[in-house]
Amino acid sequence: MLGAIEAGGTKFVCAVGDEKGNIAARVQIPTTVPEETMPQVFEFFKQYDIEAIGIGSFGPIDVNPESPTYGNITSTPKKGWRDYPFVKAVNEAFPVPVGFNTDVNAAALGEAAYGAARGLDSCLYLTVGTGIGAGAVVQGRLLQGHSHPEMGHILVRRHPNDVYKGKCPYHDDCLEGLAAGPAIEERWGEKGINLVDRAEVWDMEGCYIAQALMQYILIVSPKKIILGGGVMNQTQVFSSIYKYLDEQLNGYITLPPLSEYIVRPGLGDNAGITGSLLLARQALQVKKLI
Amino acid sequence: MLGAIEAGGTKFVCAVGDEKGNIAARVQIPTTVPEETMPQVFEFFKQYDIEAIGIGSFGPIDVNPESPTYGNITSTPKKGWRDYPFVKAVNEAFPVPVGFNTDVNAAALGEAAYGAARGLDSCLYLTVGTGIGAGAVVQGRLLQGHSHPEMGHILVRRHPNDVYKGKCPYHDDCLEGLAAGPAIEERWGEKGINLVDRAEVWDMEGCYIAQALMQYILIVSPKKIILGGGVMNQTQVFSSIYKYLDEQLNGYITLPPLSEYIVRPGLGDNAGITGSLLLARQALQVKKLI
Repeated sequence: MLGAIEAGGTKFVCAVGDEKGNIAARVQIPTTVPEETMPQVFEFFKQYDIEAIGIGSFGPIDVNPESPTYGNITSTPKKGWRDYPFVKAVNEAFPVPVGFNTDVNAAALGEAAYGAARGLDSCLYLTVGTGIGAGAVVQGRLLQGHSHPEMGHILVRRHPNDVYKGKCPYHDDCLEGLAAGPAIEERWGEKGINLVDRAEVWDMEGCYIAQALMQYILIVSPKKIILGGGVMNQTQVFSSIYKYLDEQLNGYITLPPLSEYIVRPGLGDNAGITGSLLLARQALQVKKLI
Repeated sequence: MLGAIEAGGTKFVCAVGDEKGNIAARVQIPTTVPEETMPQVFEFFKQYDIEAIGIGSFGPIDVNPESPTYGNITSTPKKGWRDYPFVKAVNEAFPVPVGFNTDVNAAALGEAAYGAARGLDSCLYLTVGTGIGAGAVVQGRLLQGHSHPEMGHILVRRHPNDVYKGKCPYHDDCLEGLAAGPAIEERWGEKGINLVDRAEVWDMEGCYIAQALMQYILIVSPKKIILGGGVMNQTQVFSSIYKYLDEQLNGYITLPPLSEYIVRPGLGDNAGITGSLLLARQALQVKKLI
């Protein structure tokens, strides 16, 4: 049996399943502080005979296996989780191989294996919710270099009607600062879910997401783009994204029809936990190789 | 003996060398039309016993091995080269394995193997000259998905003092439209080489390059960034790049000291041709595997 943890800022999803991504059991645990959350995580897994655990975590995290702080959550503002040695803690409770990556990289992996990008060796998964983050599979492997991507903080040009200052504590009006859920709420005075009929809201949101996708496409050239997260449940934003992206690219590169190229997750809300299961599988395979 | 072609918009560099990237002989041929240029290319290689040829080409090109037009230059405005079947033509003259990628991907490969990123499995090579393009090595392999990257056309925010409209025929004021050599010349009325003492020129140039690097870093997270091309010979631009990048990232991610992280090519003008030699080596290795 494989174990999977999708560690999010508000909740942890834990699951057990098989090597094909099938989930046998799952549980949700509120994200409070490690001393409260983690014992419940371990309690869940203790019911099973676990061979490996995969973690898709909120970030930033240290994913460099050669780093002394590998496996840690690093500079999060989230109380109690800063510098938390996630992999070490899991390994102390369960001495099995542990795979560790970002929640969005896990989701990209899940979608490439069993979701909307099934059969492709490349995809990009963007989540737009409380924050904005993205992960990517490139030539069959998770995109990673000096560190994991931080695609939510790229710079965008302002929509001409947008006077909102932006909400990112580091960059003010980067993508996350202008287009994540809290920015929508602060700019318009209401949560996005209460703004469904305000066309100008989703026109502006589409303008920002499209700019981000343009950069991702020109830089990474993914074979499929998957848009998840709470804000993307407002599916009226897709037509705005297609319109702006088409205008901006202006025929420079050849892409599949945008409505087939930029899609919703094939696994729905299970992309991240399925991908975490695959991180467990990879960790087990690496162990078997050694 | 391995053969290498660095196919640029103004000249072709052809070389022969060994599997370690050592160049034994080289020649330059003006890029006119294929009927004139290619016979001279073939004439050069006929002097040697060639086992494989690597091509690093100006683009856009078709690098998808499953595409019916694989190996072609595609939508270039360059007279005579549009839809030119580059790999096919080389293969007809020399029935040996042929490696094919972009000039900037070849340069990234050369720099990762023997240049400024030696010993790293990841780097990004950006050239700023007549055009702007970039290639990257990620986890030891060239970055490629739906197609090769087109990083020169990403969107940037305008420098507050810049009223120049931009020169890109597709996007007006994308990175290439604002920061390539022809844009510098048209904006300031002189070639960059005659503007060495005008601090405002290089401040603005650094502002644009830094924005591009910020996007590349947040999206690909390369372990080293290498800046080549004619405009980058104006090394006074580096301090402006460091200043703007530092301001923009604002401590959000941890990077090595910028003066070690963002550097000039270790192979000088030989990055592209050395990388092309490595593309030949890879093509030969693939053949031996089959």
